[in-house]
Amino acid sequence: MFTSKEMFTSKDVVTVNHEKLRQLTQRILCELGVPEKDAKTASYVLNESDLRGIDSHGMGRLKAYAKALRLGLINKAAEIKIVTDAGSILLIDGCNSLGIVTTPHIMQMCIDRARKAGVCVIGVVNTNHFGIAGYYPMMAAKQGMLGICFANTLPLAAPFGGKDRLIGSDPIGIAAPAGQYDDFVLDMATSSVAYGKLEIAMRRGDKIPTDWIIGPKGEVTDDPHDFGRGGALRSMAGPKGYGLSVMIEVFSSLLVGAGIGHEVGNAVLDEKRENIGIFMLAIDISKIRPLEDFKAHVDKYYEMVKGSGKAQGVKEIFLPGEIEAKITRQRMEKGIPLNEVVARDVLVVAESVGLCEEGETFEDLLARCGIGV
Amino acid sequence: MFTSKEMFTSKDVVTVNHEKLRQLTQRILCELGVPEKDAKTASYVLNESDLRGIDSHGMGRLKAYAKALRLGLINKAAEIKIVTDAGSILLIDGCNSLGIVTTPHIMQMCIDRARKAGVCVIGVVNTNHFGIAGYYPMMAAKQGMLGICFANTLPLAAPFGGKDRLIGSDPIGIAAPAGQYDDFVLDMATSSVAYGKLEIAMRRGDKIPTDWIIGPKGEVTDDPHDFGRGGALRSMAGPKGYGLSVMIEVFSSLLVGAGIGHEVGNAVLDEKRENIGIFMLAIDISKIRPLEDFKAHVDKYYEMVKGSGKAQGVKEIFLPGEIEAKITRQRMEKGIPLNEVVARDVLVVAESVGLCEEGETFEDLLARCGIGV
Repeated sequence: MFTSKEMFTSKDVVTVNHEKLRQLTQRILCELGVPEKDAKTASYVLNESDLRGIDSHGMGRLKAYAKALRLGLINKAAEIKIVTDAGSILLIDGCNSLGIVTTPHIMQMCIDRARKAGVCVIGVVNTNHFGIAGYYPMMAAKQGMLGICFANTLPLAAPFGGKDRLIGSDPIGIAAPAGQYDDFVLDMATSSVAYGKLEIAMRRGDKIPTDWIIGPKGEVTDDPHDFGRGGALRSMAGPKGYGLSVMIEVFSSLLVGAGIGHEVGNAVLDEKRENIGIFMLAIDISKIRPLEDFKAHVDKYYEMVKGSGKAQGVKEIFLPGEIEAKITRQRMEKGIPLNEVVARDVLVVAESVGLCEEGETFEDLLARCGIGV
Repeated sequence: MFTSKEMFTSKDVVTVNHEKLRQLTQRILCELGVPEKDAKTASYVLNESDLRGIDSHGMGRLKAYAKALRLGLINKAAEIKIVTDAGSILLIDGCNSLGIVTTPHIMQMCIDRARKAGVCVIGVVNTNHFGIAGYYPMMAAKQGMLGICFANTLPLAAPFGGKDRLIGSDPIGIAAPAGQYDDFVLDMATSSVAYGKLEIAMRRGDKIPTDWIIGPKGEVTDDPHDFGRGGALRSMAGPKGYGLSVMIEVFSSLLVGAGIGHEVGNAVLDEKRENIGIFMLAIDISKIRPLEDFKAHVDKYYEMVKGSGKAQGVKEIFLPGEIEAKITRQRMEKGIPLNEVVARDVLVVAESVGLCEEGETFEDLLARCGIGV
């Protein structure tokens, strides 16, 4: 989020084949001290985000990870410890590891356990930003399961009726496998709006809808600059979204004993370790009904929604994750466009680890790494 | 919902001790053909709703249950069948039973299984309206667990970008046990607004916020009458709430093979059986960390939020379920106020089963049942 300052309004400067971009990510993470195998795991998480068009959580976030690694706020080794293990419910100590390295392994463990028991819950304490929340339930959906993943985040939103930043943007990821259509994937923050949208409004001098943020005194405001003056994000949907955020924090943080409120740090903002928690759940659909029956039912639901009446001016209704799946197909074919902010940030990180020199372009960087555009 | 037509603007006509009201509910359900033991179970579910101030789902709904029972749309016997049982994940056939009778037993089974395995998921197919979604996770919270309950409902909301009523109001119930404070309870529909609020606006001739409903062509509208003209509710929070509703339907309906869209009936609206599904989850916190540690953490979180800065004009910030817990304490002490619509509806049902006669008051009814005010 905080690396994406001008991301939403700056122009694309380079388009890179997705696999080449992944290889570059792996290489840079290696140079930052992450073991190669782990850098590879992480590179797939970031690549998936860029493929799906969630540009704030892919290469756009590399700079933040690099800063946290460089400051020693994150353990470079992919260490985790099982704290409690009751078969289908576990507590895992993330050992302050890179979330994008260890969370995929933990989710796979959750899926494997659910294959045996039918359902598995894993709580992770002492961990860090794990990329897009949707990545993990998508792993479950690809393996014929329902998947859920929640995490708490640094406090950016005010409680309903409050004015202090105390509640996270607290993402929810939920996925379900479809048959012939794209898997359903819900991947969203429970705050009203992404910070990047505020940035756009500020740069343009636009007013914003009054349900986006509150001002420093908790007042209603349509001025995006009020966030920087001590305001806070609102939760989505007023008290409903606030209640949902609280419950996400209960499941991801309080259940496992992670940080809450200002106990949650951020490498970019306050140079403190994150101290967040993660909740994940996998459900083996085949223990309830035949997987093919379920998938056929999802397809029928998809067709019901797609075929229903559109509102004035709307050409197509989308199911959760469908737009991202379309973007993925486009970007797999045509490459991933990087805007000037992301490209510059990646070059800065690459330069800091000696992979390129000042004044070089993204193409130069790829060439130096032996990858090519 | 459809029994509460004038509920929100009509005055209270009688206040009844909560236990006496529960006994009356039990008696009326018995007279409607529900076995006494089952009528008792159901009476506690409805009573809890009235105690918590959710007047649309307590006695206010008795008329709808009575109609469904009388039309034979619901099986009066509290029959359920276990369809699949993998220990910590089960599919249960609700056998078209009264949801307020069988769901409490199924949730208790979920909690008992979670006590053994640490976690349990139960899907219920072929069932009916079960009262407030919060009732079931509250059962889990009282027993030291995290609880979740989702259900699908008849279609009232349009998909994001659509104009047809296709998506349910799809309630979410989530609860967690606190230590010295009230348990956290989130109990909400994922649609933008309760139908009752539209009713108030219509009666008053008020305009409504444009995020409540869409008009018959899917157009933006501030006229509450547009709902009756073929409009639809919006999901809460635009595409986010729509995505969440879709996922609630995946977990509650598609996972178990229940009805979707217009396959879901309603006794009051179309005299068809409901055919909904339920998803429930119980998590034994003590398998992750000592329950007392968790509760202390919830209390700390509570204090952090309560003690934080208030927005202009706000005296107190509430945690999810806190207002309802306060109302419960008030109503346990002072009785449950019934407004003229609910009181009249209950009298009509009581009269239909011979418990009272035309022209009699609520006090007369209680006296006839040997309960007293």
